[in-house]
Formats: sequence, C-alpha cells, structure tokens
Amino acid sequence: MAMEALTMPWKQLLLKALESNSNLKHSSYFQLATIGSNGRPSNRTVVFRGFQDNSDKIQINTDCRSHKIDDLKYCPFAEICWYFTDSWEQFRINGRVDVIDGSNADPVKLKQREKAWFASSPRSRLQYLGPNPGLPSLSEQPPLAPSLDPSTGPVGAFCLLVLDADQVDYVNLKINERLIFTSRENINGEKFWTSEKINP
Amino acid sequence: MAMEALTMPWKQLLLKALESNSNLKHSSYFQLATIGSNGRPSNRTVVFRGFQDNSDKIQINTDCRSHKIDDLKYCPFAEICWYFTDSWEQFRINGRVDVIDGSNADPVKLKQREKAWFASSPRSRLQYLGPNPGLPSLSEQPPLAPSLDPSTGPVGAFCLLVLDADQVDYVNLKINERLIFTSRENINGEKFWTSEKINP
Repeated sequence: MAMEALTMPWKQLLLKALESNSNLKHSSYFQLATIGSNGRPSNRTVVFRGFQDNSDKIQINTDCRSHKIDDLKYCPFAEICWYFTDSWEQFRINGRVDVIDGSNADPVKLKQREKAWFASSPRSRLQYLGPNPGLPSLSEQPPLAPSLDPSTGPVGAFCLLVLDADQVDYVNLKINERLIFTSRENINGEKFWTSEKINP
Repeated sequence: MAMEALTMPWKQLLLKALESNSNLKHSSYFQLATIGSNGRPSNRTVVFRGFQDNSDKIQINTDCRSHKIDDLKYCPFAEICWYFTDSWEQFRINGRVDVIDGSNADPVKLKQREKAWFASSPRSRLQYLGPNPGLPSLSEQPPLAPSLDPSTGPVGAFCLLVLDADQVDYVNLKINERLIFTSRENINGEKFWTSEKINP
C-alpha cells in the first residue's frame, strides 16, 4: 500500500470546489448524518457556515430544539456528505461534533457562538424565534413575523455546531479519482493528515 | 394534535418533485445515511433507480464490495436525504433496507436484481467489473476498460438495495411547509400512511 504525500490537503480541495460552484446557491448546502437514540440513522440538509477561524473545523448553525441535538448528545459523531453538482466532486467528512448552546461553560466557545450569530443574516436569525420545529403545527395561519433588533445577541434557541473531522473521503467523478484523508497524531499530540489514493 | 388526512401521499409529492426538477441531471441523486459497525454514521450520494413495480419501495444499485453493505448488515436501517435544488423541497425517507445480492435464496428477489441490472445502462454495468472500491489504488495507470456483452446477466459484485420506508419528513422551503408521513398497520396487518403538518 503506497502512502502518497498528496500535494493538496482536503481543505484546499474543498475551498476550490466551493469557488468553482459558487454560482449555485445550493453549493453551500450539505447533508449531515447522525445517529438517533432509537439506533437509526438520521440525515438532513444544513448550511455551511464557514471554517472556524483558521482551522479546518466546520461550522453549522442550528436550532437547540431540533432532533439533531438529541442525536448528537446520544452519539457525538456525524458524517457530512457534500456533493458539488457542477464539478461532480463529493466530500464525505466524518468527525466529532461539539454542540455549543447558550449554557456552555467555556467563554471562548460562547464567544464563537456569538460570532456565528452575528455572521448570519438578520432574516435567518428570525427562525430561532419561531415555533418549536418538528412539533405539530397548531395554527392554519402562518405566525406573525417576529422582529428582532439587529444588535440583539444570540437567542436561547440558537446553537452552533462545530465538526472536527478525522476522516475525509474525496471523489472527483469527472476524472474518476478518489482520495482518503486520515488524521493522525504525532508524538506531541498534534494532529496531522495523511492521504492515500483509493479505487473509486 | 390534529391528524390531518392530507390529500397527496408522499410518493405523489416525490414524483411531482422529480418531474419539476427533471431538467437537472443531479435531481435523481440523493444522500443515503447508514450506521457503520464502528458505531458512527456514514453518508454518501447514490442514484435513484425508481420505485419497485407499483410499490413505494425505493431501489438503489450498488457494489457488493462497498462499505454500505457491511453497514446494512450491521444495522438494516437507513435514511435518505433528498434535496431538490430547483424546487427547494427536501424528503427525508427513513426505513429498512433489503440487500439483494446474487446469493439471495428468494427467486422473486433474484428476478428483481436481474431486472435492475438490465435497466441500468451497459456503461454503468462496467463499474462492477472494476477494482475493489475503497481499496488502495495500486496502479498509476487507469485500468483497461473492460467490455461486457449487453446480454450478460448481473455480475457477482452487483447488488440491489430496496428501501421500504416507514417515515417520510417532507419540507417545502418556498412555501415554508413541513409534513410528516408515518406508516402504520391496520388490523389486517396492511400498511397505510397517516400525515400531519408540523412546524418547519
């Protein structure tokens, strides 16, 4: 088994894919799979909210009241499947998810949550004031649009998810090439990535 | 909790979504989440191969040598996440998956597998003759394109997956409506569906 030192890390490949598909609104959407407490897989579309600072940790905003929070408390692992419809590239990103809600004890994480809140559009913030997602809709009328001062910080229902990857499976269907990236730790406990070409 | 008898079953909604997005090649692609024997979720893009006969069972072709087969033997449940990029509709389809390979003891299922094989293009059949997917790529050269007589039946690596749904979560982001469909059994053991409007 040849372990090749490929020149481009997965984050660079991903940034390149995002750029070449940037004309498509849906290029920032991907599917996040988790495991429910009933032992069944669960899968939904979410929006990419960027990498955290200069790391390769992936950020997602979500509602504290959504099922995926229960899922992640039951099993903290998730896999992103991100298919780019123009460039025919797929990234499968597996890792552990940190759930950061307003009750988090770490001030640095609370700051990250606040930063994510203000980075989202005032319009998208409004959804966290809506009725409990997934519960029966009690009214035939759409609820009155709530309003929120743009300077107001994160509301209770706002939750930041941070996925720290330890494996990335990349496939490019145009050139029929597939790479697997695996994170390892060196003797100082620092994370580094190796990559290998595998059969598509 | 009002249990509404909504007029359109999920299969009709799905066929309608497929039709209104049919100009896009990727509208027949969706993400299939499973659980690996390591207890982590797994997620990948696969191709919709139609409903089985007149049922609402969803067909997928795959390679017997792929990881998802091991996953489904460990846990037979899967969730499809199918996002339609033009109509902004999402279907989350959860159910049990029947894995039908050439060693299946049921002649009816073997016939379904054969039917799925011949329904796929001769070109797509060739991939099942390729090297073991996911294993290290040993050669720098692309392998010689194998050839296959169009009348040849399913090869050993060809596997038909059939997902029998018991829950479908539908959301339409254009009108901000969400429905949950749940399958139940009547006193004769026959399957029927109920649906309810829930908060998006």
